[in-house]
Order: sequence, then C-alpha cells, then structure tokens
Amino acid sequence: MTETLAERRARLMGPNVPTFYRNPVHIVRGQGVWLWDAAGRRYLDCYNNVAHVGHCHPAVVGAIARQAAELNTHTRYHHDLVLDYIERLTARLGHGISQAIMVCTGSEANDIALRMAQAVTGKTGVIATDNTYHGNTAATSALSSRRPPIGGYPPHVRLVPAPDSLRNPDPDGSVLAGHVARAIAGLEAAGYGFSGMMLCPAFANEGIPSVVPGFFDRTAAVIRQAGGLVLCDEVQPGFGRMGSHFWGHEALGFAPDVVTVGKPMANGHPVAAILARPDVMAAFRNAFGYFNTFGGNPVSAAACLATLQVIEEEGLQDNAARVSAHGMDRLRALRHPLLAEVRGAGLFFGAEFVLDADQTPATDFVADLVEAMVARGFLLNRIGRAGNTLKIRPPMPFGIAEADLLMDALEAALASTPVRA
Amino acid sequence: MTETLAERRARLMGPNVPTFYRNPVHIVRGQGVWLWDAAGRRYLDCYNNVAHVGHCHPAVVGAIARQAAELNTHTRYHHDLVLDYIERLTARLGHGISQAIMVCTGSEANDIALRMAQAVTGKTGVIATDNTYHGNTAATSALSSRRPPIGGYPPHVRLVPAPDSLRNPDPDGSVLAGHVARAIAGLEAAGYGFSGMMLCPAFANEGIPSVVPGFFDRTAAVIRQAGGLVLCDEVQPGFGRMGSHFWGHEALGFAPDVVTVGKPMANGHPVAAILARPDVMAAFRNAFGYFNTFGGNPVSAAACLATLQVIEEEGLQDNAARVSAHGMDRLRALRHPLLAEVRGAGLFFGAEFVLDADQTPATDFVADLVEAMVARGFLLNRIGRAGNTLKIRPPMPFGIAEADLLMDALEAALASTPVRA
Repeated sequence: MTETLAERRARLMGPNVPTFYRNPVHIVRGQGVWLWDAAGRRYLDCYNNVAHVGHCHPAVVGAIARQAAELNTHTRYHHDLVLDYIERLTARLGHGISQAIMVCTGSEANDIALRMAQAVTGKTGVIATDNTYHGNTAATSALSSRRPPIGGYPPHVRLVPAPDSLRNPDPDGSVLAGHVARAIAGLEAAGYGFSGMMLCPAFANEGIPSVVPGFFDRTAAVIRQAGGLVLCDEVQPGFGRMGSHFWGHEALGFAPDVVTVGKPMANGHPVAAILARPDVMAAFRNAFGYFNTFGGNPVSAAACLATLQVIEEEGLQDNAARVSAHGMDRLRALRHPLLAEVRGAGLFFGAEFVLDADQTPATDFVADLVEAMVARGFLLNRIGRAGNTLKIRPPMPFGIAEADLLMDALEAALASTPVRA
Repeated sequence: MTETLAERRARLMGPNVPTFYRNPVHIVRGQGVWLWDAAGRRYLDCYNNVAHVGHCHPAVVGAIARQAAELNTHTRYHHDLVLDYIERLTARLGHGISQAIMVCTGSEANDIALRMAQAVTGKTGVIATDNTYHGNTAATSALSSRRPPIGGYPPHVRLVPAPDSLRNPDPDGSVLAGHVARAIAGLEAAGYGFSGMMLCPAFANEGIPSVVPGFFDRTAAVIRQAGGLVLCDEVQPGFGRMGSHFWGHEALGFAPDVVTVGKPMANGHPVAAILARPDVMAAFRNAFGYFNTFGGNPVSAAACLATLQVIEEEGLQDNAARVSAHGMDRLRALRHPLLAEVRGAGLFFGAEFVLDADQTPATDFVADLVEAMVARGFLLNRIGRAGNTLKIRPPMPFGIAEADLLMDALEAALASTPVRA
C-alpha cells in the first residue's frame, strides 16, 4: 500500500488545498531562476515573485544564518537592524511616508492598512476592484472577489469593476473614477462612510491590464475629495519589478497614503510591512496598541536588508527594465489565432486568449498551454477573471537569455497545443 | 546632535510602540537561557516563550540555514517536509485531530479558527474571556479585551468574566460555565447564534489563575450542548511547557475541536498552525480556498521539525515538570506583606501582590519589582487585569540552577523594593 504525495497531502492538509498544475510538480531544490524536481528535472521559474532576487540567493541565506545564530527576538527590546531597515526602505518612498510597522505576511499588512484608514477617517466603508486579492484574514478576504468570505461579503465593502483594457478600454481612467465615486456615494448613503480604497497599482490579480501613467489620477482625486485614503498594495509590483520604477505607484504616478509590502521583501522569509506617513501611523498606533511577536525580529530584518542590498548591487531593477522591453518585443511577435492582447509592465507579462470576436475567454486553451509549458520545463500560470490570460512573473534575475528560452518554448507550445471546441 | 535609540524608534515606527521596561533593554545576543545587551551585560531570560528550546539553538539554526540554501518556496508545489511535520505534530494530539493549515503567526491561526467555527456551525457568535488576547488581526482583536478594536467591539462577540482564583474562586468551573451559558443565550437571542468559544487552557493572559483538571468540563459541555466548537489557543501552553502534559488542554483534560499553535513552534522563526479534525477542516477548506504564501514553506517546516526534535531529544517537557515543582517550592517560600497568592503550571509562574484585605492590586509595587529585577539582570514581566501579578515564563531549558538564581534575586528584590503608598 503506497500513498501518493497528493493522497498524503489530502490526509494531512484536508480537501481543496490549492496546488499548481494538473500534476503538481514536486520541487526539491532551487538556485537563481531555476528549480529542480525530485526526479532531477530542471524547470525555468517564470512565475515566482517571492524568490525575488533568485532562489536561495547566498547573500540572503547567509544573512539569515548569521543572524539566527546571534539573536532572534521581538521588538519589545531595542535592536538596531529593524530600524536600519525601515530607514533604508522608507528612503525609497516619497509622499512623506517615513514610518513602518513590520509584520509577517501581506495579509497581516493589508489587515492593518484597512484599520489605518478606519482610524484616520472614523469611517468603515472600503472599496476594491471586483477581480482582486488582498489577503486571507477575515477582514482582507472581504475584498477578495475570487474567494468569497465565509459568511458572505460584509455591507461596508464595495467592489467596483476592475480595469480590463481588452473588453472595456478606459485610457484615462475616468470610467474607474466614476465607479469609485458611485461606490463612495453608496457607502455614505448606507451610513458606513468612506475610509479608503485598496488597490494593486499593477492590477496584477486583475490580469495586468494595460494602463498608462496618470490612469489612477482621477480616481485618486475622487478618493481624496471624499476624505478617504489611498491604500496601495505593493506586494506584487514593489521592489523594482516594474523596471521603470521601484514601486508600482511611481510607475502610475500617484501618491499613496499607505503602502503595504510583502512577498518579495526578504526573498521568501515570512515578513511584510505597512509603510505610512507619521500622521496616519499615529492615528493607528494611538487607537490600537499594535504588537506583532515575530514582526521585525532581527532575523527578518537581516533578511530584508540583504534582499534590498542585492536588488541594488546587482542592478535588478535595471535588469527588469531591459528584460521587460525584450520580453514585450518577443510577446508582440507571437502569432496565434486566439491571441487577443499581449501586455506587461516590468517583469510582469500577460497574454490574453479569446475564442471569438465576442472575446469569449479561451480558458481551456490557456489551461492546456500552461500544462504544455510545464511539460517543456517552464513554470508559469494564468490569471484574469476567466483564467484565460497567461501570467509570467519571474524572479528578478531572469535575463534576456532566459526570456528567449521561455519565448522559444512558448512559440513551440502555441504551435502544438490544440484548440478545444 | 545624537539621536537615542528610543527617539530613532519613535521616528521610524511612530508613537505608542510597545516596549518592555521603563528603560528598554537593548539586546544584541542570545544563547540558551541567556541574553546580552549592547554593553555586554548578561541577563537571565525568565520570560521569553518564543525562544522555546533556548535562544539560537544550534539544531534549529542549522536546520534553517541548510534548508534556506536548498529551497524555500510555497506549498502550491509538492514538498515532503511540511507533510512530515504535520504528521509528527498531529501524532501528539488526540480527539481525532489529524490535519493542519500552516500559517505564519498565531494571529493568523486564530483568525482562521474563528472562521472554522463559523464554517462548521453557520453561526457567527463567539465567546472569549474578558481579560485575554488572541491576536491582532481585525477579527481576533475583537476578542482582546486589553486592546479595544478600532471601531469598537462587534456585537457578535461576548466576553465572559475571566477565571480569577484569588478574588472569585470557582474550583469546579461551574461559575465559568454559567457565564458561558448566559452568553450563548444572549448571542442566540440577538440572532447571531453561537459558533464557539476561544480560550487559552492555561489562562496565561488572564494571570495564570489556579485551575485544576476538570475545571473546563462543565463549560465544554455547555458549548457542545449549544452546537458550538471549543477553539483551544495553545500558543502559550503548548509544546511541553505545562510539564505534566505536552498540551494545555491535556493538563485540564478536555477535548478541543480546533487547536492553534504559534510562537514557540519554530523557536522564533515566523510560523503558526491550525490543527483540526478532518470534518472541521473540510468545512473550512470547502467554504474558502485558503492559501498562505509563506505558510508551510520548506524552511519553516525544517525549523518546526528541528524544534520538535530538540524538545523530545533534550527531554524539555520533563525538565519543565522538574523545574516547575522546584520553582513552586521556592515561590511558596517567599514571604512579603503584599504577596497574596503564588501559582503556576509547568514553566508558567505567577505571584500576585495586593495592598490590603480588599485585594486592591499592588500595581505600582509589582512594576517597581520588575524594574528591580531587570536591574539585577533578570528579565521577567507582569500580567493580570491590573498588572499586579509577576509573570515568569522562561525558555524550556531553564534549569533548577537558573530557578535558584532567579528566586534568590527575587527574595533580595522583594526585601529592598519599597512599598509605595
């Protein structure tokens, strides 16, 4: 009687545990942009943004190992490293944002950001797009349209139609601003008032729609006019991934009140943060005596510092810009009858496939395409409301050579993947 | 112009950031049960439960360093280590609890436990004691009486009077059971229904009241009678600290439906978990597609496995039992006019001080006593509704010799700390 790994997972983790791919890969080793499975097969990692500076980067591994051997305790004692890190990270932000709370996950960060907006405004109403994800706590899951919260959506949350550059072009963002203005009016009429809007400035979970600088300006003006805060979830776009800019909000050119960061900031070590102006921070800190046992511990701070240093020393933001331009050239050169739009920003790439002139999502085709790419040794995935957009989001050291390997394989997979009726 | 560390913290973290002690210590190094500050001064750690098997234990540090150099990625790929750990940990639990969700903090774990109870029962009402703490997310902070949630307490939460063995003796737990029965009736009358009660089985934040095995039986019966779940927060008592038992609920002798664990489980690496029966797990997993990016990654799993192995190989639970007995003997031998009650369970010790026969809390005196102990090189703290109970909760390798050092110092500090009017 032999139990498969999938059966063992179901026995120990329960049903409905998310995995990637029809036959989940069993990864045992990582180095840079490469992963190896238990059979020794190598995969090019075209998807993982957590291993931001590359899997098992020796500078980050070394920082963790050294600090773990020296001290790992909480911030109720004084320690320098967490302060060194906050100082270095906030130096990369404008708009008066100079303070931080260190936590352990992006979900914790966004859970706090929502309460910061409540503490500042005294209101509870909050807005997000209707095709997004900002975390898995009880509070943040209420904003995550693809995972309905247990107990249903609470009435103080309004989800507005997500940008969709293919189906509903909105070049200057006025359509989004109109939706947000109506949602604010609805929240005020219902008595909740409006505390703020949370968004990912790359709209990464929305399917990476094409948006240009200035796209969010009208919406930001509507939010401020109503006294709300702009809560900018930089968990995916932050730390240089946009190539042109260190932050997603810089690329779009708007001023956030609160910035949250997570996944990539320590290359996989569990750490995240909320960055805010002193007035916003004080409103939260004085309303609630927040403390996070693991947040900002010396090991986490050392891992964060090392990751930031690698981004700078290895010029990974510039690399993202270069590889982005080349990757977009290659994506634009793809030819396939179902390919409706290619788009991207920095080391985010999307390719949307549709079945017909009505833009019916080619969901099955993209699902098959992803599997075909895995079979060829390339890990990537799909995104968008119907899962019909190929999503490519590799670690930051992903170079021109790897982009060519990926695009060559994608051309071949496109040519050989049958279109199912 | 030189900025102090406290000023730098305020500049970078904002106001009202919790610290220990009037003059916070600046700790730079840890080893076993000892910590060193920046001036090279050594402190005996009589308080930190996160460094469960001792600060910077080489087995845990080594496991983290090795696995971080090999692979650190999420559980959407298959990996053995997280399954190995869940299997080993659930083997230590009875009551049909055999499955786990891995997360990063105790707050995340309790946030999920609350939703598990909602998913199982279809109700939202929840009960906790009125002098506790179960986390800092929006949902869990609603149970934390000492930190009122932003926006106030939601109406589906009922806080019942916490056990207080000094002021309100309740030897058989019938008083608590009566409070819980009335709270359930209130939740049902208000239309929320009753989903469950969350408790720490050591009542660690309540001031470690003296409770005997069977104390929770009547309350558990009331909870089950009403169809609710017993959500057992083992973040503090779990992993052998009780000495007599591996878990707090074992020591009290009741059957939980859900167990949450956190702080001590990987000796400071940010990890936590929710442990449940398959039926409870399925209700949650099927209602909500939960995924945690960092949760259960190979480095966290390796750190957890190493910590569990050290607890077993070094006999730390037995050590807790031995040192507990000796420490209680020494505590009972203390003589001081304000000392009202000493109590403890395993490597939890409490000593409550009052000013008079009305049991007016001697809060200032205990605050001064804590500072006097820090000045003598002993890190501990205070707890309880009025902060008038000395709390001692050392790392698990804390031995008889260290207990004697601590108790000798405590005798001297008691003799020399003035009683303020």
